[in-house]
Order: sequence, then C-alpha cells, then structure tokens
Amino acid sequence: MTGDRIYLYDTTLRDGAQTQGVDFGVADKVAIAEALDGLGIDYVEAGWPGANPTDDAVFDALPNLARSRVVAFGMTRRQGRSAGNDPGLSAILGARAQAACLVGKTWDFHVDVALAVPRDENLQMIRDSVAEGVKRGREVLFDAEHFFDGYAANPAYAMQAIQAAHEAGARWIVLCDTNGGTLPDRIEAVVREVAKTIPGDKLGIHCHNDTENAVANSLAAVRAGARMIQGTINGLGERCGNANLISLIPTLVLKMGFETGIAKDRLPRLAEVSRLLDRRLNRPSNRHAAYVGEAAFAHKGGLHASAVEKDPTSYEHVSPDLVGNKRHLVMSDQAGRANMLARLRELGIEVEPKDKRLPRLLEDVKAKEFQGYAFDDVPASFELLARRAFGAVPQYFALDRFQIQVEHRHNAKGELVTVSQAIITIDIGNERQMVVAEGNGPVDALDAALRKALEPRYPTLATMNLMDYKVRILTPQDGTKAVTRVMIESKDSNGKHWATVGVSPNIMDASFNALEDGITYKLFHDGARAA
Amino acid sequence: MTGDRIYLYDTTLRDGAQTQGVDFGVADKVAIAEALDGLGIDYVEAGWPGANPTDDAVFDALPNLARSRVVAFGMTRRQGRSAGNDPGLSAILGARAQAACLVGKTWDFHVDVALAVPRDENLQMIRDSVAEGVKRGREVLFDAEHFFDGYAANPAYAMQAIQAAHEAGARWIVLCDTNGGTLPDRIEAVVREVAKTIPGDKLGIHCHNDTENAVANSLAAVRAGARMIQGTINGLGERCGNANLISLIPTLVLKMGFETGIAKDRLPRLAEVSRLLDRRLNRPSNRHAAYVGEAAFAHKGGLHASAVEKDPTSYEHVSPDLVGNKRHLVMSDQAGRANMLARLRELGIEVEPKDKRLPRLLEDVKAKEFQGYAFDDVPASFELLARRAFGAVPQYFALDRFQIQVEHRHNAKGELVTVSQAIITIDIGNERQMVVAEGNGPVDALDAALRKALEPRYPTLATMNLMDYKVRILTPQDGTKAVTRVMIESKDSNGKHWATVGVSPNIMDASFNALEDGITYKLFHDGARAA
Repeated sequence: MTGDRIYLYDTTLRDGAQTQGVDFGVADKVAIAEALDGLGIDYVEAGWPGANPTDDAVFDALPNLARSRVVAFGMTRRQGRSAGNDPGLSAILGARAQAACLVGKTWDFHVDVALAVPRDENLQMIRDSVAEGVKRGREVLFDAEHFFDGYAANPAYAMQAIQAAHEAGARWIVLCDTNGGTLPDRIEAVVREVAKTIPGDKLGIHCHNDTENAVANSLAAVRAGARMIQGTINGLGERCGNANLISLIPTLVLKMGFETGIAKDRLPRLAEVSRLLDRRLNRPSNRHAAYVGEAAFAHKGGLHASAVEKDPTSYEHVSPDLVGNKRHLVMSDQAGRANMLARLRELGIEVEPKDKRLPRLLEDVKAKEFQGYAFDDVPASFELLARRAFGAVPQYFALDRFQIQVEHRHNAKGELVTVSQAIITIDIGNERQMVVAEGNGPVDALDAALRKALEPRYPTLATMNLMDYKVRILTPQDGTKAVTRVMIESKDSNGKHWATVGVSPNIMDASFNALEDGITYKLFHDGARAA
Repeated sequence: MTGDRIYLYDTTLRDGAQTQGVDFGVADKVAIAEALDGLGIDYVEAGWPGANPTDDAVFDALPNLARSRVVAFGMTRRQGRSAGNDPGLSAILGARAQAACLVGKTWDFHVDVALAVPRDENLQMIRDSVAEGVKRGREVLFDAEHFFDGYAANPAYAMQAIQAAHEAGARWIVLCDTNGGTLPDRIEAVVREVAKTIPGDKLGIHCHNDTENAVANSLAAVRAGARMIQGTINGLGERCGNANLISLIPTLVLKMGFETGIAKDRLPRLAEVSRLLDRRLNRPSNRHAAYVGEAAFAHKGGLHASAVEKDPTSYEHVSPDLVGNKRHLVMSDQAGRANMLARLRELGIEVEPKDKRLPRLLEDVKAKEFQGYAFDDVPASFELLARRAFGAVPQYFALDRFQIQVEHRHNAKGELVTVSQAIITIDIGNERQMVVAEGNGPVDALDAALRKALEPRYPTLATMNLMDYKVRILTPQDGTKAVTRVMIESKDSNGKHWATVGVSPNIMDASFNALEDGITYKLFHDGARAA
C-alpha cells in the first residue's frame, strides 16, 4: 500500500556538503553513495551539476546503484531564458542521474526581494523547468524553498507555486522549512492543509534543526500525510544541520511500522553508515547519537545493570542489535559483580561467578577509579586491566627509565626555538635498548622514542597514530596533591580507534602510562607475540 | 496567569552527572548552579544526598541562590521502613535544600520485578515519602519513573501511583519517559489524558533523547497542559541525553510566548551558560547546537550574505542576539568591526571607529583564531590582547629561555621516582635572574620557577593559584601540523578566577604562554607597576 510506504531521500552529498568545513572529494561521495545504496535509501542526491568540479565529476564516477536513484540538484531556469536553453538547467538535466530535484521560491517576499522577478514569472519558471525535466525523461522533484514561511506570509501564493510544479508533472513536492524555525504542531497543521490539494503520497518534507526539532518536524509531516523525507546522515548540514535520517529511519520502521526501501535485515547497517560519514570527515562520532551512538545503550550502576541483564526490554526502547549497535554495561565505581561479568563476557572472557580473581579485579577497578581513572571513557584500558587480571596479556616491553628535556632558547641566528627530546631505556624481551628521539613536544618525543625502540621488533606499530590527547588536573576534595589524568586516543590505518588513560601526580608519567596501554592494546589485537 | 507560566527544572548536576565520563567536582557544581541561578531557572537539582561524597558536600557548599530553588533528589522510602526512619529519605530531607524530588515506580512490571514489592506497598511507599517531605517543610516533587511505559502497560496502576503522590501533597508530578522511546504524539495524548485527573499546572515532563525527540516530546507535553519541564544544559545525560533546556527555553519564550523565570534581558546569558558547561567538562562546544552554536547563525558568503545583511529576519528564525549568539557572515568582516568596538567598550576602552589600531587588532584576533586560540572562552587573554593593542599593558617581565627536565628512574632504594625541574632565565626590569625549581610535573615546575623569580618583586602573586589546566590537541583540516592549546584557570585568594590560553606546536611553550598571560592579568588588575 502506497500510503504505508515512506520514501527516504538523502541529501548528505549536497545540502550536507554545503556545511562550513565539510569538503568531500569524489571518492568520499562515491563511498557514501554506495553505503546509502547498500542500506536501501530511495534517493541519493549526489550534488549540483555545474556548481563545482567535484559535483560535475561525481555523477560520472558513480557506479550503477542497486537500490538508490541518483538525483541531480539545481535551480529552476533563470528569468528570460527558455527552459530548453538555460545553462544551469541543462547541466542538471545533462547529468548521469535518474532524477532531478529543482528548487524554487514559494515565499512572495523572497520572489520580490531576493529573486526580484514578477510573481507570475516565478510561477512560470517553476512550471517550465519541471516540464522540461519531465520531457527529458527525468523523475522530477520540486523543492519548495521557504515553504512554511511563505505559507504563513501568503498561503495563496505559496500554494500556487507548488501547484505549478505539481501540474507540470513533478513526482514529489518537497515542503522545505529552509530557515528551520517552524515547530512540529505548525508543520503538521500546514501539511494537513496542503494535503487537501496535493495528495500526501506526492508530498515530501525537508527540515532543518534550528530549534532541535528537525526529526520531530519530519515525523509531524508524515503524520499529516507526507510520504517522503529529505535528510542527511547524522544530521549533517549548515547552521544546526538537517533532519537526521539515522535517527528517523529506526523510528519509522521499528516504532511506526512504515515500510521503507530498507529491508529489516539491512537496518543493522545504520550504525556503520553513521560511522562511515564521521570517518570520511575525520571527526569523532557522537557517542550520544540516538540509536547508533556508542553510549545509546549504555547502562550504569550495579543494581540497574543486573536488572538489565535479567530483562533488557524493560530498560531499552528498542533492541540495539536491530540498528547495528551494542548494549554496553558501563564500568564505574558503582559497578557490581553482574555488571563486571557481563563486561567480561562481551570481551569473550568466560569466568565462573565464583572465580576469586573477579572480586580482586573489582577492587582494582574501584581503587583505580578512586585515583582518578575513568574507565567509562576508555574501554581499551579497561579491557587490558581485565585481560591482565586473567593473565592473558603478554608483556611486550618493560620501561626501565626515561628522561625528557624541553629547551626553549635562542638559536645561533637569534631565533626562538623549542626543542623536545626523550631518552628511554627499555627492555624488549632480553634485549635492553637505549634510544633518543625528538618530537613536537615532550609527549610526542616520548611517543617517538617508544616507536623507535619498538617498531623494528613490532612492525605493525607503523600503522598506528596518536589522534587526540587530553589532560585534566583532578583536584581531590581531601586536599591531597592533585593528580593528572591523561587520555590518549590512538588510530589505526583501517579506521579503528581506541582510547587509553593514565593517571599520576606527574603528567609525563600519566602520559607514558596511556601511551603504553595504547601500544599494548594494538599489539594484543594484532596478535603479536612478545619478544 | 499560572496557565501561561512554564517552570524550568535543571537536572544537569544530578541526571546529567550520571553520564559516562562526566565527573563534576564540588567547585564545578557550584559554578554551574550559580550560572543557572543567574539565568533564572526555577529549580536546580544539585545532587543525590547520600549517594557519594561530592553530592553530600555540594548542598553545604552552595551559596544562597537569588532566583533558583535548590532541590535534593532521591528515592522514596524502602520497603519495611517508616518514612520517618529511613536513612535514604533522611539524607534527602536533611540536605540544605528548599525542595525534594522523590523518584518512585509507576510501571507495574518494575514494581514486581526490579523493586520486588507488593503493588500496594509501592503505593504506600510513595504516599508516605511525599507526606514526610511535606511534613518536614519541603516543596515535594514526585518523579514518576517509567511513566509512559507504565501507562501503556497498566494505565490504572500508573494513575494510582501518581495520584498517591498528588494526594499526599506533591507540588509537582513529573511524568518521566525514562527509557526515552516514546514519540511526541503519544506523549501529547497521554499527558492530555492525565491532565483530566491531575491539573496541568501540577504536571511536569522529563524526557530522554533516545529517538532524538526529547525537545519535541517536552513541547508536546506542554501543548497538552504540563507546566514544568525537566532537562539539562546542552542535553547532557546518560545514553542519548536528556531534554536540552538550552534549545527549549528560547522556543518557549520567543516562539510560544510562555512566561518563565527568565526575564527577557537575561535570555542572552543562554549562550554563555551553554559554553560554561563545556568548559567545565573540557569538551569542545557543539558548533551546530540550536540557538547557541557558533554556526547556528552562520550565513554563507556572496549574494546570500548581502541579502541577510539587508534583511536578516527573512533568513533567520530568531535574532541571534536574543539568545546571546552572533550572526556569522562568512564573507564579511563588517560584523567583526562593530562587534569588536562593542567588546572594547565593555572593557572600558573607548576607541574611535576610524582608529587604525582597530583593523590591526581585528587581523591579529583572526590570525590567532586561525592558529587555534578560542577567545570566547578566555576573556582574560582577549582582554590582554586588546589592552596591548592600545599600549596599556606594562611589560612586567620578559623570558629569555627555559629548560625543563623530567626524569623517571629508580632511586638509590630501588624505588621508581619521577622528578620534574625547570630552569628559567628571565629579565625583570634591568635585572636578569636565573632560577631553578621543582614541581609535580613540568608545568608545575615552570610555574614554581616563575613565581620564585617574580614574587620578591611582585608580592601579590603569592595570593594567586593555578586552579585548572586543560590541554587539547587541535588537528586542522588542511593536514598541517597539529597544534596544542592549553587553557589555564587561575584563582585569587578573594575567589576571583580567570582563564588564559596558549597555543603552540609545543605543549610547554603553549603552557608558558598561558601562565604568562595569567600572571600578567593578575598584576595588571592589582595595579602593579613594572620593575
């Protein structure tokens, strides 16, 4: 039944790409389009032909997609041009795409001031452009820019504009809340009104998140009858972003019972699609993202955690595996034995509940958290602690001592320079090594010295990089000396990343501990054998 | 009219504090509570007395707030205890707070399984606990845990539970979507039903963001009659977070016309309250946050930007200054100059708009922001930069060079020790000094050496302390070398504190720059004269 089918339209590669600081290359766009196709998104808007070289190239570079229709975006024809002879429109309709999405003005004020054409001419521009697209064999969508503001200012004109597109053969009329300020109840009421003239199964919605309501606004439009949603992966977009398809899809499918192009067995790809975008943008994923965030199904606290294990459905609004996510029982100083057992099971460590090493590990975690460790944030450090408790981690190396020097002085030319060097003495198997290395700063120098000593024996370390470094001074209430907590995030060339922690009164000791854990974690997961 | 007044309840310090990785100290909690009070939030839930030492200490540490009522959170009495003789309840009602928020079960399933008490006993626990709070002179709020799941499973029992609290004298019944999975239309329908029994001006709403609808769910409850909203700054909270008060407040006030405790002239504090939390958590602010994000009112260059300048209202859903934010025109620095003049005026520096030092200062700020400085967060560093541009800051001292050593080694007894020392050569007036000092770590040693050299000449420095030290590595998009940003917060014995920033490829240089600014700021405001 058409009424129960929602069409999904992704504009990450066009509206999302207009975000400040986002700079997709052709390879990024192709990879993202393929992931969207793998998921089963109905429409993938790949770019604006004629706007820039990347967007021109991407339509040719895209392979044939199995599930998604490729859409080229652009404006309606200019004033005074015929639709068949407009360079902008020609570029859009010349692109290797099955569909064309044409944006036009529906707010009288913008027609008068921003576009500065007579209102009737604007209607004619819409009509001609849509008709031209249909004539050229494209499925045509009409993006009604500023529709909700336009409808508030002059509903008759806003309706004329979208009716022009509808009558000229547009498959979809997409109502855009371009400034992002409309609230859900208003969206619902307006879409309900519009659906009296243009049937809901021809109406789409395009929302921005300026009031943090883009998801709710999209759902409100669907409740009012709209059957297509435009949005982006992770809500990427200008200002506050677009409607987040990653949040919308599971709600539509799992909670509202709509059919989409995404078969249920492909829904677990959502988490990976979300992470793919962040990887391409070289930004950390939002741990708290709805459905797919690392913390979205995190449970804290002893009593609570044991109740979750007994019956997850009473503590989780959906099952995490349906969207490709995992339940995460948080280690914290409230952590109980049940919590710990479950965490160990996640790591593949099977322990008898009565194993004596279990209470010892619990005590160890508590003692370290009291010192200032925060294992919640650094699963890799927790994993090492747990595996070490059960004797599973080889000792790849052992530090004997280090010495770090930072010198800030004038060089021979009278310029100010700062030089950082680290000298370490380290045992790798039976071999003692003493190496010295320079770095950008003392931690970088320490990292460089460690690698210089270790890489000849453990060559996979060459694929690992230091990604982030955070320091906090923790001032305990009881007036004892402050300690420093260092968190280091490391990254592998395959995109995997992991965070480790070190705590000490001395920042360099804390940094060394975090570095050491980061390297050990990498070697353990590479299956390296100790020298 | 009560009907048009919305009460705002902040639970950043309790529900927000339960988030993975969040670790507030007493000083953090006090600073945040004071900021919420300055804004005009009606209720500030400061913690759970009896749960941990920080939460116990915070109620005593809090100063009297001008606008906010302080709330102590906790559970209803345990089974088999009288309300007057329950240790948990006594801790809550013994705390220095005007109100108590008691959480209780309303989902029959959780009463049976998680709590494992007879259903009638649960009702009695609610009744007794609320009555005890009222007897002890507290304003009592009842947090109805899992209310929406409970109402779906067994509406009669869920209603009995909240009626028990209502009849026992609770000022507010707060309906909680604890698992965060309920959608806006359902929230609206259920609250409308409940409001037939318990009037809307006694109903609150508490939402979580598991479907990215926490803001919309809160608004849906308000549309249905609820008159209190619980939420957190920036939506901080477990899993996907709580309802974001920073997004809700401007929508309620500016778009829906509700009255709140926040006078319109205090609404512009929102952006600063949002940033304060991120600073306390040592995390970057979300550039795309609704209303307050740095990019929330960013307009692209060219035609669009000039159209925005002509008539911002047609491109912005609200005016950014109303919420303490700024329009950001990517291609235009017009806004920059007016903005800078306004900031200088705030510091008492009167400058002619045509003063040639003004564009030079603007360039300098831009260049430094490009390097990674973030002056919004460190008004003290900005102030020094501005005063220096107009020749107003004496040079109290000039560093010639420093050398830092950290040694991690075995001592004579075979124990591992780490020793940090700093040697600085510094000019104070015409006098050159060379001093060496030890510290807890390299930055502490550098600080100690600076003080050792400076205090004899500038004795007021003895009243100043290093309070917090934060480090971030900034990785620019363009692949150039990463730089390190150090923020140092200093405190005076009179309670005044100020933050300064240093940026450099080398962490020790960045630290020195931040220390130097911190000391110079102190000396300038003490009216010290240069040696």
